[in-house]
Amino acid sequence: MKKQKIAVLGPGSWGTALAQVLNDNGHEVRIWGNIPEQIDEINEKHTNTRYFKDVILDENIKAYKELSEALDSVNAILFVVPTKVTRLVAKQVAELLDHKVVVMHASKGLEPGTHERLSTILEEEIPSEMRSEIVVVSGPSHAEETIVRDITLITAASKDLETARYVQGIFSNSYFRLYTNSDVIGVETAGALKNIIAVGAGALHGMGYGDNAKAAVITRGLAEITRLGVKLGADPLTYSGLSGVGDLIVTGTSIHSRNWRAGDALGRGEKLEDIERNMGMVIEGISTTKVAYEIAQELGVYMPITTAIYKSIYEGADIKESILNMMSNELRSENEWDKK
Amino acid sequence: MKKQKIAVLGPGSWGTALAQVLNDNGHEVRIWGNIPEQIDEINEKHTNTRYFKDVILDENIKAYKELSEALDSVNAILFVVPTKVTRLVAKQVAELLDHKVVVMHASKGLEPGTHERLSTILEEEIPSEMRSEIVVVSGPSHAEETIVRDITLITAASKDLETARYVQGIFSNSYFRLYTNSDVIGVETAGALKNIIAVGAGALHGMGYGDNAKAAVITRGLAEITRLGVKLGADPLTYSGLSGVGDLIVTGTSIHSRNWRAGDALGRGEKLEDIERNMGMVIEGISTTKVAYEIAQELGVYMPITTAIYKSIYEGADIKESILNMMSNELRSENEWDKK
Repeated sequence: MKKQKIAVLGPGSWGTALAQVLNDNGHEVRIWGNIPEQIDEINEKHTNTRYFKDVILDENIKAYKELSEALDSVNAILFVVPTKVTRLVAKQVAELLDHKVVVMHASKGLEPGTHERLSTILEEEIPSEMRSEIVVVSGPSHAEETIVRDITLITAASKDLETARYVQGIFSNSYFRLYTNSDVIGVETAGALKNIIAVGAGALHGMGYGDNAKAAVITRGLAEITRLGVKLGADPLTYSGLSGVGDLIVTGTSIHSRNWRAGDALGRGEKLEDIERNMGMVIEGISTTKVAYEIAQELGVYMPITTAIYKSIYEGADIKESILNMMSNELRSENEWDKK
Repeated sequence: MKKQKIAVLGPGSWGTALAQVLNDNGHEVRIWGNIPEQIDEINEKHTNTRYFKDVILDENIKAYKELSEALDSVNAILFVVPTKVTRLVAKQVAELLDHKVVVMHASKGLEPGTHERLSTILEEEIPSEMRSEIVVVSGPSHAEETIVRDITLITAASKDLETARYVQGIFSNSYFRLYTNSDVIGVETAGALKNIIAVGAGALHGMGYGDNAKAAVITRGLAEITRLGVKLGADPLTYSGLSGVGDLIVTGTSIHSRNWRAGDALGRGEKLEDIERNMGMVIEGISTTKVAYEIAQELGVYMPITTAIYKSIYEGADIKESILNMMSNELRSENEWDKK
């Protein structure tokens, strides 16, 4: 593939790791961010120590404070900003764009209030004549491992498979591989909703429970987020794939995951405000829990684990009691979700 | 429920843990085994130190050397013996049975040579007029956690849901819960085949790879065992449930799992003979790999991870090379399995 010019919007841990993958593949990568010190650090010291203490980035990776400069003549734009600012950044991009680009995103959340998926926001805010169909990049991926070039396999989903294959092409190399998928709704909702279950798995760990209990919450959690996803138009099989099960395994069983760590702290009895302050990173699972709870209420979807976490985060319920109540619900048959 | 008399055949770690669950629920439990010292130890010291160093069993749990005594007037029989002796023990049971019983099993494997599921073996060996439809008890469960009464959720699958509900009833309590499922083929093949993927996940760990790579192997492994299961008649959704994803999470991410540990040792370059000797326990995943590989060859099912593990165990291939080759296969789309 010819060398591409690609703007990566958002110098968080995952944005930085993806920028390095693209640079490894010989593309021209421009990171954009709104914290001037961080941009200077990337350009001058080739580090991003807020996320990676020991990593030196290639000198070819340039960072920009001005969005217009980052976007100048790029072939593709990758959004990796927090969910709550995706719409704002998309509006800014739409105002500046003077040529057609491939639009991708690699964030995992649902917009508070509107309950919209991020690709829908991008479709709404960026005129269709200035962009490709959106490509969602999602899957099991600790940035901490990708940045050291450990093996990572994820998904590129789009309504347009040709564009998904383009994205597959620019990212894939010997340690980083993408599978294409046409189920955008599935990949996107799975990536967002799995964070709720990661909080739940972390909470069980914080309460002192073992692997059996965690596997149970992850599996029953997978069943309930699949149930919601299907109501929203997802293919249930996508939830068995990299962006569902795969991501849930990585997020739900690892201390690397900030959502899992937030749950762990909740399980040990810490307060949400303290957890968020101590972590200093966006915990998407917390706001996604609220959005999912609201959608489930609206559509009448049975989500006991999400409800238990919602009530403990937002209504001050005791998380231990909520989760144990949920687990001792009436006996049920498995797979009941596909009959509802 | 009225107190039931239940024979548990096989005093391994899982058989012992399940015997304790049944005893906790007020049933009369009789463990049968063929190592006299172990039977004496259970009866005299109320311990089974081969598997549990610090656990004292209830005095009401009795162990028997004579199968006929263990089976006398029981309502139900639970098989928890190694896969390779299931047929032998079933033949002995069939000879001794003088009344109709509920037949359950909680082992995870496929018979070498015949490639049969364990419930098929039990159906063949125990005359139908002397037994219920077989109930398969399977799911994410480290015996080490169940024995200390940590929360465990698993599946009871049978062609006859009434019998599955009976089994759900005798086992369920505040820390141990069963979901019923009518997809016997799915539950049984998932439980057996997941051990192969656990070996693969362990091998990646032994080679030094991280969580992203392990999640990838577990997810792509889930895809390939689902592919085989569907060919054999399973509902793919069962593979997303407790006996599929759930068990894969517990087995594929935990050092408690002997299959994972065997893979880990393989990944570090140890020889299979040494691993088996050091472990001193049955590693079902090793023989299941051979059975699955043979079935996949016969039915033409694409199973790259199983093939890589098979070649390294049985043909002396380098496991690192095999797995890396597998992961750098041609780019593919996800969910391709359901189109084959």
